[in-house]
Amino acid sequence: MSTADEGFKAALEEAKKGASEGGVPIGACLVSADGKILGKGHNMRMQKDSPTIHAEISALENAGRLPASAYKGATMYTTLSPCDMCTGACILYKVKRVVLGENKTFVGGESYLKQRGIEVVNVENQECEDLMNEFIRKHPEDWYEDIGEGTPK
Amino acid sequence: MSTADEGFKAALEEAKKGASEGGVPIGACLVSADGKILGKGHNMRMQKDSPTIHAEISALENAGRLPASAYKGATMYTTLSPCDMCTGACILYKVKRVVLGENKTFVGGESYLKQRGIEVVNVENQECEDLMNEFIRKHPEDWYEDIGEGTPK
Repeated sequence: MSTADEGFKAALEEAKKGASEGGVPIGACLVSADGKILGKGHNMRMQKDSPTIHAEISALENAGRLPASAYKGATMYTTLSPCDMCTGACILYKVKRVVLGENKTFVGGESYLKQRGIEVVNVENQECEDLMNEFIRKHPEDWYEDIGEGTPK
Repeated sequence: MSTADEGFKAALEEAKKGASEGGVPIGACLVSADGKILGKGHNMRMQKDSPTIHAEISALENAGRLPASAYKGATMYTTLSPCDMCTGACILYKVKRVVLGENKTFVGGESYLKQRGIEVVNVENQECEDLMNEFIRKHPEDWYEDIGEGTPK
Protein backbone atom coordinates (compact mmCIF):
# COMPACT_ATOMS: atom_id res chain seq x y z
CA MET A 1 0.00 0.00 0.00
CA SER A 2 1.34 3.42 -0.91
CA THR A 3 1.89 6.19 1.62
CA ALA A 4 -0.98 8.14 0.09
CA ASP A 5 -3.31 5.22 0.71
CA GLU A 6 -2.08 4.89 4.30
CA GLY A 7 -2.59 8.59 5.04
CA PHE A 8 -6.11 8.60 3.68
CA LYS A 9 -6.93 5.31 5.35
CA ALA A 10 -5.79 6.69 8.71
CA ALA A 11 -7.97 9.79 8.20
CA LEU A 12 -10.98 7.63 7.37
CA GLU A 13 -10.36 5.45 10.45
CA GLU A 14 -10.31 8.62 12.54
CA ALA A 15 -13.63 9.72 11.03
CA LYS A 16 -15.15 6.35 11.91
CA LYS A 17 -13.74 6.58 15.42
CA GLY A 18 -15.45 9.98 15.71
CA ALA A 19 -18.71 8.47 14.48
CA SER A 20 -18.49 5.62 16.98
CA GLU A 21 -18.08 8.20 19.77
CA GLY A 22 -21.20 10.04 18.59
CA GLY A 23 -19.08 12.86 17.20
CA VAL A 24 -18.90 14.79 13.95
CA PRO A 25 -17.42 12.08 11.67
CA ILE A 26 -14.46 13.91 10.19
CA GLY A 27 -10.91 12.60 10.45
CA ALA A 28 -7.52 13.84 9.34
CA CYS A 29 -3.93 12.65 9.13
CA LEU A 30 -0.78 14.69 8.53
CA VAL A 31 1.93 12.84 6.59
CA SER A 32 5.47 14.14 6.12
CA ALA A 33 7.27 14.42 2.77
CA ASP A 34 9.00 11.11 3.46
CA GLY A 35 5.77 9.30 4.24
CA LYS A 36 5.77 9.31 8.03
CA ILE A 37 2.50 9.89 9.87
CA LEU A 38 3.17 13.00 11.97
CA GLY A 39 -0.23 13.17 13.64
CA LYS A 40 -3.85 12.18 13.20
CA GLY A 41 -7.12 13.03 14.89
CA HIS A 42 -10.81 13.67 14.53
CA ASN A 43 -13.36 16.36 15.20
CA MET A 44 -14.04 16.71 18.95
CA ARG A 45 -16.99 19.13 19.06
CA MET A 46 -19.33 16.63 20.69
CA GLN A 47 -16.77 14.68 22.73
CA LYS A 48 -14.99 17.68 24.29
CA ASP A 49 -17.57 20.44 23.72
CA SER A 50 -14.88 21.96 21.53
CA PRO A 51 -15.51 24.57 18.82
CA THR A 52 -11.90 24.53 17.62
CA ILE A 53 -10.75 20.88 17.62
CA HIS A 54 -11.74 20.11 14.05
CA ALA A 55 -10.10 17.06 12.46
CA GLU A 56 -7.18 18.91 10.81
CA ILE A 57 -6.53 20.97 13.96
CA SER A 58 -6.55 17.74 15.94
CA ALA A 59 -4.04 16.11 13.56
CA LEU A 60 -1.74 19.16 13.78
CA GLU A 61 -2.09 19.29 17.57
CA ASN A 62 -1.36 15.59 17.95
CA ALA A 63 1.74 16.02 15.78
CA GLY A 64 3.02 18.31 18.54
CA ARG A 65 5.50 21.19 18.26
CA LEU A 66 7.51 20.91 15.07
CA PRO A 67 9.93 23.18 13.24
CA ALA A 68 8.69 24.68 9.97
CA SER A 69 10.93 22.25 8.07
CA ALA A 70 8.89 19.26 9.31
CA TYR A 71 5.82 20.44 7.40
CA LYS A 72 7.72 20.97 4.16
CA GLY A 73 6.31 18.69 1.48
CA ALA A 74 3.72 17.34 3.93
CA THR A 75 0.21 16.26 2.99
CA MET A 76 -2.90 16.81 5.07
CA TYR A 77 -5.36 14.01 4.45
CA THR A 78 -8.88 14.87 5.57
CA THR A 79 -12.20 13.16 5.00
CA LEU A 80 -14.02 16.43 4.19
CA SER A 81 -13.30 19.69 2.37
CA PRO A 82 -11.56 21.80 5.08
CA CYS A 83 -13.42 24.71 6.71
CA ASP A 84 -11.92 28.21 6.72
CA MET A 85 -10.14 27.63 10.06
CA CYS A 86 -8.55 24.36 8.95
CA THR A 87 -7.73 25.89 5.57
CA GLY A 88 -5.87 28.63 7.42
CA ALA A 89 -4.05 26.11 9.60
CA CYS A 90 -2.77 24.28 6.49
CA ILE A 91 -1.62 27.62 5.06
CA LEU A 92 0.06 28.68 8.33
CA TYR A 93 2.20 25.55 8.39
CA LYS A 94 2.65 25.52 4.61
CA VAL A 95 1.70 21.92 3.91
CA LYS A 96 2.27 21.04 0.28
CA ARG A 97 -0.97 19.29 -0.42
CA VAL A 98 -4.45 18.72 0.95
CA VAL A 99 -6.16 15.46 -0.01
CA LEU A 100 -9.85 15.50 0.86
CA GLY A 101 -12.39 12.70 0.93
CA GLU A 102 -15.34 14.59 -0.50
CA ASN A 103 -16.90 18.02 -0.95
CA LYS A 104 -20.50 17.12 -1.66
CA THR A 105 -21.75 17.66 1.89
CA PHE A 106 -19.64 20.81 2.48
CA VAL A 107 -17.31 22.99 0.43
CA GLY A 108 -14.63 24.74 2.45
CA GLY A 109 -11.55 26.76 1.52
CA GLU A 110 -10.37 24.75 -1.48
CA SER A 111 -10.07 27.71 -3.84
CA TYR A 112 -8.18 29.76 -1.23
CA LEU A 113 -5.79 26.86 -0.60
CA LYS A 114 -5.02 26.78 -4.33
CA GLN A 115 -4.66 30.57 -4.39
CA ARG A 116 -2.06 30.24 -1.63
CA GLY A 117 -0.11 27.63 -3.60
CA ILE A 118 -1.35 24.44 -1.94
CA GLU A 119 -2.27 21.48 -4.14
CA VAL A 120 -5.80 20.20 -3.55
CA VAL A 121 -6.92 16.68 -4.49
CA ASN A 122 -10.47 15.39 -4.05
CA VAL A 123 -10.60 11.60 -3.95
CA GLU A 124 -14.44 11.56 -3.98
CA ASN A 125 -14.80 8.79 -1.43
CA GLN A 126 -18.32 7.45 -0.95
CA GLU A 127 -17.72 6.24 2.60
CA CYS A 128 -16.74 9.77 3.73
CA GLU A 129 -19.88 11.17 2.14
CA ASP A 130 -22.11 8.50 3.72
CA LEU A 131 -20.67 9.19 7.19
CA MET A 132 -21.41 12.91 6.83
CA ASN A 133 -24.89 12.44 5.38
CA GLU A 134 -25.86 10.18 8.25
CA PHE A 135 -24.55 12.63 10.87
CA ILE A 136 -26.21 15.64 9.24
CA ARG A 137 -29.52 13.78 9.01
CA LYS A 138 -29.44 12.75 12.66
CA HIS A 139 -27.84 15.86 14.20
CA PRO A 140 -28.42 18.86 11.94
CA GLU A 141 -28.06 21.45 14.76
CA ASP A 142 -24.67 20.06 15.78
CA TRP A 143 -23.42 20.00 12.21
CA TYR A 144 -24.46 23.54 11.35
CA GLU A 145 -23.01 24.76 14.63
CA ASP A 146 -19.70 23.14 13.60
CA ILE A 147 -19.54 25.24 10.44
CA GLY A 148 -20.76 28.44 12.07
CA GLU A 149 -24.15 28.37 10.38
CA GLY A 150 -27.73 28.43 11.63
CA THR A 151 -29.70 25.23 10.98
CA PRO A 152 -31.77 25.67 7.81
CA LYS A 153 -35.52 25.77 8.57
CA MET B 1 -14.80 52.25 30.43
CA SER B 2 -16.36 51.21 27.15
CA THR B 3 -16.82 47.58 26.13
CA ALA B 4 -14.19 48.01 23.43
CA ASP B 5 -11.69 49.11 26.03
CA GLU B 6 -12.58 46.15 28.25
CA GLY B 7 -12.21 43.61 25.44
CA PHE B 8 -8.81 44.93 24.44
CA LYS B 9 -7.71 45.26 28.07
CA ALA B 10 -8.62 41.60 28.67
CA ALA B 11 -6.64 40.54 25.58
CA LEU B 12 -3.60 42.51 26.77
CA GLU B 13 -3.89 40.99 30.24
CA GLU B 14 -3.89 37.54 28.61
CA ALA B 15 -0.76 38.43 26.62
CA LYS B 16 0.98 39.49 29.84
CA LYS B 17 -0.15 36.28 31.55
CA GLY B 18 1.41 34.38 28.64
CA ALA B 19 4.64 36.36 29.02
CA SER B 20 4.75 35.65 32.77
CA GLU B 21 4.45 31.94 32.01
CA GLY B 22 7.38 32.14 29.58
CA GLY B 23 5.01 31.77 26.63
CA VAL B 24 4.48 33.57 23.32
CA PRO B 25 2.95 36.85 24.61
CA ILE B 26 -0.21 37.04 22.53
CA GLY B 27 -3.66 37.32 24.08
CA ALA B 28 -7.19 37.47 22.73
CA CYS B 29 -10.71 38.10 23.94
CA LEU B 30 -14.00 37.41 22.14
CA VAL B 31 -16.76 39.90 22.97
CA SER B 32 -20.39 39.47 21.90
CA ALA B 33 -22.46 42.10 20.10
CA ASP B 34 -24.00 43.16 23.42
CA GLY B 35 -20.62 43.57 25.10
CA LYS B 36 -20.31 40.31 27.02
CA ILE B 37 -16.94 38.58 27.20
CA LEU B 38 -17.57 35.14 25.68
CA GLY B 39 -14.06 33.78 26.09
CA LYS B 40 -10.45 34.83 26.43
CA GLY B 41 -7.11 33.13 26.29
CA HIS B 42 -3.49 33.27 25.24
CA ASN B 43 -1.01 31.43 23.08
CA MET B 44 -0.03 28.07 24.63
CA ARG B 45 2.80 26.87 22.37
CA MET B 46 5.38 26.86 25.15
CA GLN B 47 3.09 26.01 28.08
CA LYS B 48 1.31 23.04 26.44
CA ASP B 49 3.69 22.23 23.58
CA SER B 50 0.77 23.20 21.37
CA PRO B 51 1.05 24.22 17.71
CA THR B 52 -2.65 25.10 17.43
CA ILE B 53 -3.61 26.91 20.65
CA HIS B 54 -2.88 30.42 19.42
CA ALA B 55 -4.51 33.26 21.35
CA GLU B 56 -7.63 33.58 19.18
CA ILE B 57 -8.12 29.80 19.05
CA SER B 58 -7.79 29.76 22.83
CA ALA B 59 -10.41 32.52 23.22
CA LEU B 60 -12.82 30.67 20.91
CA GLU B 61 -12.17 27.37 22.70
CA ASN B 62 -12.69 28.91 26.12
CA ALA B 63 -15.98 30.40 24.91
CA GLY B 64 -17.14 26.80 24.44
CA ARG B 65 -19.75 25.45 22.04
CA LEU B 66 -22.00 28.24 20.84
CA PRO B 67 -24.67 28.51 18.17
CA ALA B 68 -23.77 30.60 15.11
CA SER B 69 -26.05 33.37 16.40
CA ALA B 70 -23.78 33.94 19.42
CA TYR B 71 -20.91 35.12 17.18
CA LYS B 72 -23.12 37.53 15.25
CA GLY B 73 -21.83 41.05 15.70
CA ALA B 74 -18.99 39.78 17.90
CA THR B 75 -15.52 41.31 18.06
CA MET B 76 -12.27 39.37 18.40
CA TYR B 77 -9.73 41.48 20.27
CA THR B 78 -6.19 40.25 19.82
CA THR B 79 -2.85 41.76 20.72
CA LEU B 80 -1.26 40.86 17.35
CA SER B 81 -2.27 40.71 13.70
CA PRO B 82 -3.88 37.22 13.40
CA CYS B 83 -2.03 34.43 11.60
CA ASP B 84 -3.68 32.53 8.73
CA MET B 85 -5.17 29.90 11.07
CA CYS B 86 -6.69 32.44 13.44
CA THR B 87 -7.84 34.53 10.47
CA GLY B 88 -9.67 31.43 9.22
CA ALA B 89 -11.19 30.78 12.65
CA CYS B 90 -12.62 34.33 12.73
CA ILE B 91 -14.05 33.78 9.24
CA LEU B 92 -15.50 30.35 10.13
CA TYR B 93 -17.48 31.81 13.02
CA LYS B 94 -18.23 35.05 11.16
CA VAL B 95 -17.19 37.54 13.80
CA LYS B 96 -18.02 41.07 12.76
CA ARG B 97 -14.77 42.73 13.64
CA VAL B 98 -11.15 42.00 14.54
CA VAL B 99 -9.39 44.59 16.70
CA LEU B 100 -5.64 44.00 16.80
CA GLY B 101 -2.98 45.49 19.04
CA GLU B 102 -0.25 45.87 16.44
CA ASN B 103 1.11 44.58 13.14
CA LYS B 104 4.69 45.83 13.26
CA THR B 105 6.19 42.56 14.51
CA PHE B 106 4.00 40.34 12.28
CA VAL B 107 1.40 40.86 9.57
CA GLY B 108 -1.18 38.10 9.30
CA GLY B 109 -4.42 37.72 7.34
CA GLU B 110 -5.74 41.27 7.64
CA SER B 111 -6.37 41.74 3.94
CA TYR B 112 -8.14 38.37 3.65
CA LEU B 113 -10.33 39.21 6.65
CA LYS B 114 -11.42 42.41 4.89
CA GLN B 115 -11.93 40.50 1.64
CA ARG B 116 -14.29 38.18 3.53
CA GLY B 117 -16.26 41.12 4.93
CA ILE B 118 -14.75 41.40 8.40
CA GLU B 119 -13.87 44.84 9.76
CA VAL B 120 -10.24 45.17 10.87
CA VAL B 121 -9.04 47.82 13.31
CA ASN B 122 -5.42 48.28 14.34
CA VAL B 123 -5.10 50.15 17.65
CA GLU B 124 -1.28 50.39 17.34
CA ASN B 125 -0.58 49.62 20.99
CA GLN B 126 3.02 50.08 22.09
CA GLU B 127 2.77 47.61 24.98
CA CYS B 128 1.73 44.80 22.61
CA GLU B 129 4.66 45.59 20.35
CA ASP B 130 7.12 45.71 23.25
CA LEU B 131 5.95 42.31 24.55
CA MET B 132 6.48 40.75 21.13
CA ASN B 133 9.84 42.39 20.49
CA GLU B 134 11.14 41.15 23.82
CA PHE B 135 9.96 37.58 23.16
CA ILE B 136 11.33 37.50 19.60
CA ARG B 137 14.70 38.82 20.81
CA LYS B 138 14.95 36.21 23.57
CA HIS B 139 13.37 33.21 21.81
CA PRO B 140 13.61 33.64 18.04
CA GLU B 141 13.36 29.87 17.30
CA ASP B 142 10.12 29.56 19.27
CA TRP B 143 8.60 32.60 17.62
CA TYR B 144 9.41 31.56 14.06
CA GLU B 145 8.16 28.04 14.79
CA ASP B 146 4.87 29.60 15.94
CA ILE B 147 4.35 31.24 12.55
CA GLY B 148 5.53 28.24 10.53
CA GLU B 149 8.78 29.89 9.47
CA GLY B 150 12.42 28.97 9.75
CA THR B 151 14.51 31.25 12.00
CA PRO B 152 16.29 33.84 9.85
CA LYS B 153 20.07 33.34 9.88
